[in-house]
Amino acid sequence: MIDLVKNLATVNRRTKASVIRELLKLTNKPEVISFAGGLPAPQTFPSERMAEMAQRIVKDNARVALQYGPTEGLPELKSQIVKLLREEEGINTSPANILVTTASQQALDIVGRTFIDPSDPILVELPSYIGGLQVFNSYGAKLIGIQADDDGMIIDELEARLKKLRSDEEHYKFVYIVPDFQNPSGVTLTQERRHQLIRLSEQYNVLLVEDSPYRQIRFEGDAPEMLYKMDTTHNVISLFTFSKTLAPGLRLGFILAHEAIIQKMAILKQSLDLCTSPLSQLMAAEFLKSGVFREHVGTVKQLYKSKKDAMLNALERYMPADKGVSWTKPQGGLFLWVRLPGHMNADELFYEAIKQNVAYVIGSAFHCDGGGQNTMRLNFSYPSEEQIDEGIKRLAGVIKHNLRVKSKVKAAKAGLEIGS
Amino acid sequence: MIDLVKNLATVNRRTKASVIRELLKLTNKPEVISFAGGLPAPQTFPSERMAEMAQRIVKDNARVALQYGPTEGLPELKSQIVKLLREEEGINTSPANILVTTASQQALDIVGRTFIDPSDPILVELPSYIGGLQVFNSYGAKLIGIQADDDGMIIDELEARLKKLRSDEEHYKFVYIVPDFQNPSGVTLTQERRHQLIRLSEQYNVLLVEDSPYRQIRFEGDAPEMLYKMDTTHNVISLFTFSKTLAPGLRLGFILAHEAIIQKMAILKQSLDLCTSPLSQLMAAEFLKSGVFREHVGTVKQLYKSKKDAMLNALERYMPADKGVSWTKPQGGLFLWVRLPGHMNADELFYEAIKQNVAYVIGSAFHCDGGGQNTMRLNFSYPSEEQIDEGIKRLAGVIKHNLRVKSKVKAAKAGLEIGS
Repeated sequence: MIDLVKNLATVNRRTKASVIRELLKLTNKPEVISFAGGLPAPQTFPSERMAEMAQRIVKDNARVALQYGPTEGLPELKSQIVKLLREEEGINTSPANILVTTASQQALDIVGRTFIDPSDPILVELPSYIGGLQVFNSYGAKLIGIQADDDGMIIDELEARLKKLRSDEEHYKFVYIVPDFQNPSGVTLTQERRHQLIRLSEQYNVLLVEDSPYRQIRFEGDAPEMLYKMDTTHNVISLFTFSKTLAPGLRLGFILAHEAIIQKMAILKQSLDLCTSPLSQLMAAEFLKSGVFREHVGTVKQLYKSKKDAMLNALERYMPADKGVSWTKPQGGLFLWVRLPGHMNADELFYEAIKQNVAYVIGSAFHCDGGGQNTMRLNFSYPSEEQIDEGIKRLAGVIKHNLRVKSKVKAAKAGLEIGS
Repeated sequence: MIDLVKNLATVNRRTKASVIRELLKLTNKPEVISFAGGLPAPQTFPSERMAEMAQRIVKDNARVALQYGPTEGLPELKSQIVKLLREEEGINTSPANILVTTASQQALDIVGRTFIDPSDPILVELPSYIGGLQVFNSYGAKLIGIQADDDGMIIDELEARLKKLRSDEEHYKFVYIVPDFQNPSGVTLTQERRHQLIRLSEQYNVLLVEDSPYRQIRFEGDAPEMLYKMDTTHNVISLFTFSKTLAPGLRLGFILAHEAIIQKMAILKQSLDLCTSPLSQLMAAEFLKSGVFREHVGTVKQLYKSKKDAMLNALERYMPADKGVSWTKPQGGLFLWVRLPGHMNADELFYEAIKQNVAYVIGSAFHCDGGGQNTMRLNFSYPSEEQIDEGIKRLAGVIKHNLRVKSKVKAAKAGLEIGS
């Protein structure tokens, strides 16, 4: 065989198998309660209706459902998306602003490939969605992390970084942000910070990539506006997916942006996969048109809210909050975020947790700056409420044990110091 | 909005909307008989069975069909592919050598992205598949065209080019070839040339990318072996699709290669679209398992053979073969190739043809060297036999008219010369 290393494109020499993927393999044992996944709960899949719909669409509309479709997406779906955006978000748009994608991972890839040249600065949150980081890295981006707190990205810090980049004459390409129930943190960017962010985008003439896979899964509280809606200078590109609202198996999402950007992206998509499955598109179009979509999202929200509450209750009950362990309280989405005391290391703790048959994703994986060793992401959409209670109990046990060991070591060291 | 030109990645500044795409828009009028498409005939879609299968799979197996799947592909499908390759091609392989893709356009993109750095020489046929050229161009490849005749790529010419590249110390990455019923030419690489090509691949240690979307659609004659089967040094990567054998709407294909290559590609695919639709995968797996796949491919072959014969008959009847118009006689696939006399220009003729309500794809679009102006690709899978007869009659009329005009101009010029 050819020498693979010598023949790979340069960019792939940088690409390693993800650490997460390797860690996730350890969580596959049936005795492990896993908070490590990001999967929607399969009991929410509207499988009866989908089965009936798929059957009817393939039978009655095979010439569309089974044939190649237009790269931009089927008009039947795009018109339903336009309607959805108007009704749900107050966004007035047209089909020409929409590119249907093979779910939002492809949307991220298209964004990366459209804009990033090697070494271009891309601004992301600390922590940020790992699938985004992976794509931007694959195009050689220089990732710049901006701290976030419980109100989302700290926009003052973003401004300072943009100012510095501008004075250094660096060609920053975009700010990547998950404003609603962020993956991994579960945090939502406040309305006030959204205004600040939109102002910055105008001032620094920088694109905002608004990744919105979870926005529709809001359990409680009022939704701030979408960045896309607030923007008046066409500087926002928004990414959506049907993976959390219907089912990931559809592999269906879309990009909303200025027409000139959509046109460029459509040319690109043609060479990526020609078109997204017309069957999936027709199924989603029918869900939207019939109103079953909204009804179904209601079911999903109800279930996830109850699981989220179960996780918050369990954290309250078992976690040593008095020892500096804290967590976010998401108003929607699939994830929450646990912060351990600064001296603890969740990367190392992972192996202890696996021994106790409980798993999470190490928070450092979401940090482009190598930080976040004392954090972890917990998923509440997939496990049952019973598993959530038992799993958090186990995890709290691991953390408490580690705290005890650490304080003994500390005491011993202190003793040594006194003795010496 | 940001200045799009200044913010696009360099590679996209090279990417223009394809000429073909613009020309194809002209062929969309209902009165035009189009040989310009590349679509499978929709009447071959096994829609009744697919409708029933889709319904049953979603209902009974929603937890797999509607969920995220493994990036490499579902084991259910991979094991059926292994069986298919053994039975149909005598290839002994394992699931670890297979990466399921979102059809073969994604397979091409993965190949390009895995290997190509800007300016890397990639060797392709003259003419070659446009979707491949587009991908390789998008990664900045330096395309080198190798002449082909009715026996496929001329391997002696390939050898001369490889020798030159080696002596120039250029890092050629792979040879891209569609060995069976090539798109666009319909030509099949002979067994003898396959042996020659495999020897070259060893001698020059160069990868062969064998793109095989049409191989299973053979109407007549004996199939030469697949390059993948003949190769003993793991230098062959083969690309397959279910678009022509089942339906393009499934968006389903796969790559067959050495395990080390598949592993690299799987990491890449993770950032492209996470996984290919599990529903499509389960449907294809069931088609293969139940034996309906083979039966269905039989139906497709029968229909396309009859359409191909109709086209050959019409060409025979209407085309001025005595004036230097010739065409290929494919033993399978979806396309054939017409060569006009060297002085004629099929790019210009296209507009005349459209006026006469008949369309083709200009052959120059498939030539990476800017040549092929006297050639055209005709598709026979999509139009009906009646349309084929009428369309070829119209096309022959356009060609004959153009020949008459040219000879009159020539005669007039000759007259002028005599008179002067």
